[in-house]
Amino acid sequence: MSASPDFLLELSRAARGAPESGIVEVVNYGRLKEGLIPLWVGEGDLPTPAFISEAATRGLAAGETFYTWQRGIPELRQAIADYHGRLFARPFSAERFFVTIGGMHAVHIAVGLVVEPGQEVIVPSPTWPNVPAAVELAGGRARILHMDYAATGWTLDIDRLEALIGPATRAILLNSPANPTGWAADEATLKAVLAVARKHGLWIIADEVYGRFSFTGERAASFHDVADEANDRILYVNTFSKNWAMTGWRIGWLEAPPAFGPAIENLVQYTTSGVPGFLQRGALAAIERGEDFIAFQKARVGRALDVMTSALAATNRVSFAKPDGAFYLFLAIDGFDDTRRLALRLIDEAGVGVAPGTAFGPGGERFLRLCLARSESHIATAADRLQDWLRKA
Amino acid sequence: MSASPDFLLELSRAARGAPESGIVEVVNYGRLKEGLIPLWVGEGDLPTPAFISEAATRGLAAGETFYTWQRGIPELRQAIADYHGRLFARPFSAERFFVTIGGMHAVHIAVGLVVEPGQEVIVPSPTWPNVPAAVELAGGRARILHMDYAATGWTLDIDRLEALIGPATRAILLNSPANPTGWAADEATLKAVLAVARKHGLWIIADEVYGRFSFTGERAASFHDVADEANDRILYVNTFSKNWAMTGWRIGWLEAPPAFGPAIENLVQYTTSGVPGFLQRGALAAIERGEDFIAFQKARVGRALDVMTSALAATNRVSFAKPDGAFYLFLAIDGFDDTRRLALRLIDEAGVGVAPGTAFGPGGERFLRLCLARSESHIATAADRLQDWLRKA
Repeated sequence: MSASPDFLLELSRAARGAPESGIVEVVNYGRLKEGLIPLWVGEGDLPTPAFISEAATRGLAAGETFYTWQRGIPELRQAIADYHGRLFARPFSAERFFVTIGGMHAVHIAVGLVVEPGQEVIVPSPTWPNVPAAVELAGGRARILHMDYAATGWTLDIDRLEALIGPATRAILLNSPANPTGWAADEATLKAVLAVARKHGLWIIADEVYGRFSFTGERAASFHDVADEANDRILYVNTFSKNWAMTGWRIGWLEAPPAFGPAIENLVQYTTSGVPGFLQRGALAAIERGEDFIAFQKARVGRALDVMTSALAATNRVSFAKPDGAFYLFLAIDGFDDTRRLALRLIDEAGVGVAPGTAFGPGGERFLRLCLARSESHIATAADRLQDWLRKA
Repeated sequence: MSASPDFLLELSRAARGAPESGIVEVVNYGRLKEGLIPLWVGEGDLPTPAFISEAATRGLAAGETFYTWQRGIPELRQAIADYHGRLFARPFSAERFFVTIGGMHAVHIAVGLVVEPGQEVIVPSPTWPNVPAAVELAGGRARILHMDYAATGWTLDIDRLEALIGPATRAILLNSPANPTGWAADEATLKAVLAVARKHGLWIIADEVYGRFSFTGERAASFHDVADEANDRILYVNTFSKNWAMTGWRIGWLEAPPAFGPAIENLVQYTTSGVPGFLQRGALAAIERGEDFIAFQKARVGRALDVMTSALAATNRVSFAKPDGAFYLFLAIDGFDDTRRLALRLIDEAGVGVAPGTAFGPGGERFLRLCLARSESHIATAADRLQDWLRKA
């Protein structure tokens, strides 16, 4: 046989090019650090509520362990439609909704549905890094739209968005409320983005997974408030993960024109072959009976935000825009531009785990992301530690 | 805004090109037919054993509902390695194993790891249709290698395999024991395929999900019996689905050179972001304590095969090769070459649901696939009904 291969040289370009998450290095460095308060990952500290887990357990015990609908069980698709009906005060058809392996799989399918290899997807940045990575993995190209930072808030410049559009542009991916910045598009901005998309025949991939975590109202503004769904080119990605503390369940949904149904069914079939039926029973309980839990979580994040921002503002060393939504604080510390190094130092010197802004693409490099969906005592202790560290640093 | 779009024209070529499963039409036609015995889908009729479901339930109740390792929980990776150690009587490193959303996701990742868009993967046919579909969805091309049918058995012609290899060839996907034919490669064939792969620097994607369902021995021959894993280019795909009646759980595994670990982690991250931790507890119970269940299922399929083949052979109207493994009977009925139509007729006239050979690619068109992993009374009734129908038809 031939000489021993260097297997790494055998990887496809796409597999070789998929970036490692910039959070992982920091997490690996601090994972076993005694007493560390971890604010680095985008999930809360609460396990899934028992009423949800118990519904899944019942489905499992009842033997719902066979292959199931590639689009999701009909009851769950109807419940997602009803949920949208309640949120947006108008009827939605269950035919628009497709259950996926988390929001990530919904992004993967959305890109696969409408983006040809070589085509571009415009992604405002700072961004959740998985989105541009998924675009590139599918052979597309992520075109970065730099957002503007000011202490009064992040902004998305519509003229600059339009200037990025060229013959290869196929879609705009808009995450609002946004991870990591906490920016949320207001209705006027959503209308402006939609007008640009209509003018150029582009798709919008609307990542609204933090839509229920709004600090400015009952819910964040949504493309559902401004779009004409029978005609507009919009794919919505969403998830059970954040609303109902189900990050580890890997269940989300894609909302798409019903005409895409057979294609979505096939893309699901040939990537994951569906979502466990008994887990969908848990998701059904969550979306039908989970409003109290959302309200509880949202209030908790609101208090955490107050505690953290007042502690840090008192140091006069930090800069941040108060988030409109989601559950992060994205802040810069004066004099510390190397946030990868800073994140490692904060592990050792402050006992707090944060995500370095370098993980979130252009424009985020000098920031740190703190996840606030944690217990008040953890947040208060982390705030104290960061305040102390900043006073000494 | 512009005129209402025809959304179907907006689909990417890959999404538009993904084929609909040829089984679906038949299932949809017969799904609600009273008293029908369904032998069309590739899964057994037993729910997951309780000791497996209960292990998952314990994980869920214990709050294992957070994001987890993209490669799978360490305990499960070690248990899969130990399982291989028992099967192949030599040690395996846990670093070779990666937990996926079923065998399908393992195929998807395997193709993504080593196949560039435009490159070819050789797929023996008749074939499980999801494999060529996954190759094409990733931008690759499935090159069909026609297998030869004789009543004494299906065969794979190594010279014809080698003749298909050209500059664009990147991999050979070998499913053995095979769905739908029941063919299993013997050790000499595996060695010959491996020699061809070595000579041409090709990858082998070894789909051995039916490896435990062998009618010729304790287990089917495996590339593990003939390969030098430190040097050979082999990616193994496998699943918990068939061995432990866990089709609906969507858990499988990929075995790959450990050097691929970071790339696999990224491909998982950007497609599904991992497998639920609490479900992995069920998989752990299955692989550690599931040998009796495998033996039970295998004996049951063996008896079903005897019942079905003797009933059908007695009609002198059918032709089939006795399967070496898996849990299907793939048979042709004299005078009925249009198997799509035949499958629809059998629903109405015999009360038996079968999969038409047209669903399984070139060379399978005139066959029907019957799944035998069902209760003996169902199999006996189905055999009687088919025998009666054949005597009248």
